[in-house]
Amino acid sequence: MTTSSTNPFLSPEQLVERLRRLHAGLAILGPSDLAGRHTGEHPSNFDAGVMAQPNSVDAVSALVRWCHKNEVRIVPQGGLTGLVGGNISRQGQVTLSTSRLNRILSIEPEEMTATVEAGVTLEALQHAAAEHGLTTGIDLGSRGTATIGGMVSTNAGGILAFRNGVMRHQVLGLEAVLPSGDVFSDLTRVVKVSAGPDMKQMFIGGEGAFGFVTKVVLKLEPQRPHRATALVGVSDARAALALVRQLRSLPAVTLEAAEMMWPRYIRDHARLKGLDLSWLEDDAAALLVEISAESVDAAMGMLEEQLAALWEPLTLRGGVVAHSLDQARRLWDIREDSGFYYAEIPEAASFDVSVPPLFLDTYVAELERRLKAIDLTYSAYVYGHIADGNLHLTLIKRGPLPEEELRAVEDAVYTGIRNAGGSFSAEHGVGLEKRYGYQTYTSSQKQALAKALKQALDPKGMFNPGKVPF
Amino acid sequence: MTTSSTNPFLSPEQLVERLRRLHAGLAILGPSDLAGRHTGEHPSNFDAGVMAQPNSVDAVSALVRWCHKNEVRIVPQGGLTGLVGGNISRQGQVTLSTSRLNRILSIEPEEMTATVEAGVTLEALQHAAAEHGLTTGIDLGSRGTATIGGMVSTNAGGILAFRNGVMRHQVLGLEAVLPSGDVFSDLTRVVKVSAGPDMKQMFIGGEGAFGFVTKVVLKLEPQRPHRATALVGVSDARAALALVRQLRSLPAVTLEAAEMMWPRYIRDHARLKGLDLSWLEDDAAALLVEISAESVDAAMGMLEEQLAALWEPLTLRGGVVAHSLDQARRLWDIREDSGFYYAEIPEAASFDVSVPPLFLDTYVAELERRLKAIDLTYSAYVYGHIADGNLHLTLIKRGPLPEEELRAVEDAVYTGIRNAGGSFSAEHGVGLEKRYGYQTYTSSQKQALAKALKQALDPKGMFNPGKVPF
Repeated sequence: MTTSSTNPFLSPEQLVERLRRLHAGLAILGPSDLAGRHTGEHPSNFDAGVMAQPNSVDAVSALVRWCHKNEVRIVPQGGLTGLVGGNISRQGQVTLSTSRLNRILSIEPEEMTATVEAGVTLEALQHAAAEHGLTTGIDLGSRGTATIGGMVSTNAGGILAFRNGVMRHQVLGLEAVLPSGDVFSDLTRVVKVSAGPDMKQMFIGGEGAFGFVTKVVLKLEPQRPHRATALVGVSDARAALALVRQLRSLPAVTLEAAEMMWPRYIRDHARLKGLDLSWLEDDAAALLVEISAESVDAAMGMLEEQLAALWEPLTLRGGVVAHSLDQARRLWDIREDSGFYYAEIPEAASFDVSVPPLFLDTYVAELERRLKAIDLTYSAYVYGHIADGNLHLTLIKRGPLPEEELRAVEDAVYTGIRNAGGSFSAEHGVGLEKRYGYQTYTSSQKQALAKALKQALDPKGMFNPGKVPF
Repeated sequence: MTTSSTNPFLSPEQLVERLRRLHAGLAILGPSDLAGRHTGEHPSNFDAGVMAQPNSVDAVSALVRWCHKNEVRIVPQGGLTGLVGGNISRQGQVTLSTSRLNRILSIEPEEMTATVEAGVTLEALQHAAAEHGLTTGIDLGSRGTATIGGMVSTNAGGILAFRNGVMRHQVLGLEAVLPSGDVFSDLTRVVKVSAGPDMKQMFIGGEGAFGFVTKVVLKLEPQRPHRATALVGVSDARAALALVRQLRSLPAVTLEAAEMMWPRYIRDHARLKGLDLSWLEDDAAALLVEISAESVDAAMGMLEEQLAALWEPLTLRGGVVAHSLDQARRLWDIREDSGFYYAEIPEAASFDVSVPPLFLDTYVAELERRLKAIDLTYSAYVYGHIADGNLHLTLIKRGPLPEEELRAVEDAVYTGIRNAGGSFSAEHGVGLEKRYGYQTYTSSQKQALAKALKQALDPKGMFNPGKVPF
């Protein structure tokens, strides 16, 4: 019953031609422009064959209005570092990129806030903030390409979430273009607001379903450059968490990271990358901890002192404190270069779950049992942000799995998490690849509410079709 | 077109009779039971004449289903400490109280989380958490009566928001009963979740429009009992904020509170309560700061040292460091007993705004000018949480004002705040009394989105009628 003034089956070339006439602030790339570009984490991100690159909210609005009228669906794209296929597009659609919305609009050092366009990368903001002795309250391995807009849309977490919360806790204000083309503007830069339902929360973690984020006001925090880093052998998550608690309880110290890697991850990483981790006991997991203090010497001294004191009580299984930035960098590489295994197991099924910390050891043990019940050869690489219980899991098998087997593995990974108070998806979102998890391990009430909201805001399903809520 | 199996004009007594038959877990109070009760902060809170007190989510659900079917509107009530009339009820409605949903269900000391029913008071949770060396990340003056459910529904802030954020940043999970009577359950107790649109956010700061909150999972944080408190004279917010920044930058110290009271508030408080504040220069504002450290001595020493060092650079205008808990308590009373003026100016118009900290001095000066432009005798008491820019304002005049004059005062108070990145309502919500502010100083897009959500979730307007969104 909807009317459309254009043919809904426009070819990419036809779409390009029409979109180029819309607004001076819109750059439009067609199939030939996109052919040589890196598609980011998913090969189908550019399947639409058309990319709009607006340089202003007005340009976004003009594009969205036209698409709304002509029933051309829109797929938002940021840094394309997403791992769940949330930016996959299809022919007949338009991808809407934040690549030219990349200005840092202001930094208020005294208020410790920044206002940026959505396409600014996390690293660009970190560099700009550093000039004021500040940094972002969130940090992630993909900082060089991940954009603030994408991080808002997936409610990104990263390595500091145990202390600073996730993106939702860092966003003070935002601006977004709605599926109608109207602009929602709430560029608040204060933390205390109780002024009716806070509708901007819908865009945070909304995966582009309700609006296209164009600007964000973020909290910043002071830089703490004086750091010490250690890699420590631990028997289990319980020991790691005890160490974390102790480091967090020290008044003159700030815990900056606590990243745990289970034994198989560590062993294979060392083997494949030729690292000498012989000082780590064979069956130990490794905990990477980083702290900051008043000086590098104080941080290093404190870390060595704490590890010595905890060595016996926590039965630590080996450890090394980095004595240079270069050594620290190499320890970090073990954690951040988590793609080391893809050469051996391309397209391996991977997962990202949140598990209440006290449940971690039980969960990992049960997971291994459940995987073996599917196939005796199955095992998983397990690593992640131990202090908040966010685990990354990769099935050690070349992918993709046949659908039925993938479902069985998903069930093995997700079982029991929700009842324990965790989540089947911690920080990457649902996208296309976690649809089964969302359908099966999210309450029907939550799904129904999300659908009702989608129906109210985007009844024609113009924004990020096929993604949540569905 | 909706059908109703009962007369929508039931008297309170008739309603009581029917509701008493619904569920064993429902206590129902009628007009005679309510007659002697204190109505809380607003005399019309009990005008419905009927109060349902469920003791389980099942009982809530049974009541809400019956009310939905019979088109009886529901007004949620917690500790009744709200200052904006958000709990006002009318005859023909039912108030739904959390007073018997008051169990602390669990505290997980190692994860630093608590799961509580919505009617638990902030103070009760603080007492229970203290047994584990923990406390809540939010604190407010009305801790003895304010409930967790009410604090969720108004996205409460309080004195720690500058560091820990507001209630939205403390809530990990919640359970709520929807207007249909269905139960929305998301009792997550991890911080990292990116699992589709986070619908529980709608209940936080939703003022009861979308659901009745029954359970909440909250973050906790370590107690820091070793404290020092000072009251310091400052010339303006700029000096106060510089002091705050310095105290926040000290590695072994945690800033616990920074509450500023402008000169008129301090002067009249001293006069009316017979306090000797002669050490404070006459035209100075007062800043109450509290810090914690490794020991009380360390905290006190650090505070004295810092104030001495900053005395000249910040032109401090007098100051006292409390040397006993009793002295500290008396300093706090000056801030927390902010009702001192109501005896002289009953029903005075009061406001609660969020102003970006750098804009505070300009805002307060302009506000005084705008008030004087309405009436040369007008002035305001100004005080609040300086580090996050949350000001409480009270017009120094007996109320209530005639509507037209109240509108003029509201315009004087709210003008410019939104453009500066603040909010006309910081922490008390909209309720009935800030409806003009919401309509006039909130973007039409935000209002439209909130209405669309209300229409989707509560099309018959059964929950908290007349309140946001409207």
